[in-house]
Amino acid sequence: MSKRWCRFKKNNVIEYGWLHDDEIVVVHGMPWGNPTETGAKYPLSSVKLLAPVVPPTFYCVGLNYPAHIIAIAKRTGVEPNFPPRPDVAYRANNALCGQNDPIIKPKDAGEDFQYEGELVVVIGKEGRFIQPENALEHVFGWTIGNDVSERNWQRSDRTNWRAKNCDTFNPMGPWIATDLDYRKMTTIVRLNNEEVERFATGDMHHDVETYIVEISKYCTLYPGDIIWMGTDGAPRNMKPGDVCEVEITGIGTLRNTVIAQS
Amino acid sequence: MSKRWCRFKKNNVIEYGWLHDDEIVVVHGMPWGNPTETGAKYPLSSVKLLAPVVPPTFYCVGLNYPAHIIAIAKRTGVEPNFPPRPDVAYRANNALCGQNDPIIKPKDAGEDFQYEGELVVVIGKEGRFIQPENALEHVFGWTIGNDVSERNWQRSDRTNWRAKNCDTFNPMGPWIATDLDYRKMTTIVRLNNEEVERFATGDMHHDVETYIVEISKYCTLYPGDIIWMGTDGAPRNMKPGDVCEVEITGIGTLRNTVIAQS
Repeated sequence: MSKRWCRFKKNNVIEYGWLHDDEIVVVHGMPWGNPTETGAKYPLSSVKLLAPVVPPTFYCVGLNYPAHIIAIAKRTGVEPNFPPRPDVAYRANNALCGQNDPIIKPKDAGEDFQYEGELVVVIGKEGRFIQPENALEHVFGWTIGNDVSERNWQRSDRTNWRAKNCDTFNPMGPWIATDLDYRKMTTIVRLNNEEVERFATGDMHHDVETYIVEISKYCTLYPGDIIWMGTDGAPRNMKPGDVCEVEITGIGTLRNTVIAQS
Repeated sequence: MSKRWCRFKKNNVIEYGWLHDDEIVVVHGMPWGNPTETGAKYPLSSVKLLAPVVPPTFYCVGLNYPAHIIAIAKRTGVEPNFPPRPDVAYRANNALCGQNDPIIKPKDAGEDFQYEGELVVVIGKEGRFIQPENALEHVFGWTIGNDVSERNWQRSDRTNWRAKNCDTFNPMGPWIATDLDYRKMTTIVRLNNEEVERFATGDMHHDVETYIVEISKYCTLYPGDIIWMGTDGAPRNMKPGDVCEVEITGIGTLRNTVIAQS
């Protein structure tokens, strides 16, 4: 049965727990370790949800859905580039925030300030040289990410660091859901309650198993590592005041509001 | 006075301490927090030194020394590109290892398997919108990195992930040294005791203060974050059996041996 694991702050203490109806059952230890219940229970509405994990390594995947690859090719005036190899890149922990946290648009960011709704893989079991048939055994669960992107910086800078890693550019949450089949999920993005994107979460160019196998040929995957799996479609611009929701069926809905840097 | 802070393992416990002659004075807490001495002292030779910090965010800088920029231009047949902006990129924590740990050359890595001796900045104080005149107050200390690089993958892949982030590709250490002036340091690389590189550590295209100021315009710098500052010169190839030493005057010498993946 799918369980939903939350990382949250209450009374200035950061803890983990799992959702039982609208209550959080608090645990000692990490969800992918051997967590033990503390006996405490809090109403979900009484806590501040945080990004559900701060990863040792924060992997991400670009150009992994067909409509997104075609949209980028159109925008930049080149032929669509379907990556032959499952290469990964990185995001930075400073950029993480959680459910209902503001996405802060920097003062010098331009108009092309966009959401990217993504499935996030949370690794639960250490592995190197993982075989395809065992790949999903290394997944603890699934959460949702919004890979906020400033397209002018993405075009002009040598790297994606500020285009995709400013503080608050990586909302993640609301929680980690276990025991789900990502091939049966649907990703839906809503901007101010208007549906702006809908795609089959599993419609990936290189799938989750392929990435886990390929990464682990060279790098040890550790519990708590995350892989953001990329987005589909042609994202629209967001402006201060906009509310962006990323729903993935079976997991939940990540909701954040854009505000201007003060 | 400069202090040398070690992260080490003894009896399967990971601790921090500072070097007093050849003894480690063990502390509770992080060096950049308010560490308190536990009373324990160990001979340096009795512990396993580890990478001196596992950073929340692992920043790195490419193309930051003149001779290296010119060497790359020559290798790739283009005009030298001196980056107009101090853009950063990222490395991954899985790739970290410490003093005397082996650098494992993957089975499918090619001949162009190279060292890059680098100064590493260790952040000690959280900051955002840091001003140039305060930048160095946010530095806890300095250590040494070897940014091992597989050049064929660097050329062929969309990202540098496996070219620069395979397990053991980022040896760091031997310790963090405080209260030093990086503009007075010299970086020396030796391959099998032969000096193969020597440059003024401070001879950077964009200096440490510039990177701290620029990163903190967009990203909060946290205690324990690190910035690898790039290398100079045209690195040579390493093969299994080779011993690579990176010395930075005032800090110490990071020593690692290349071995073949078994």
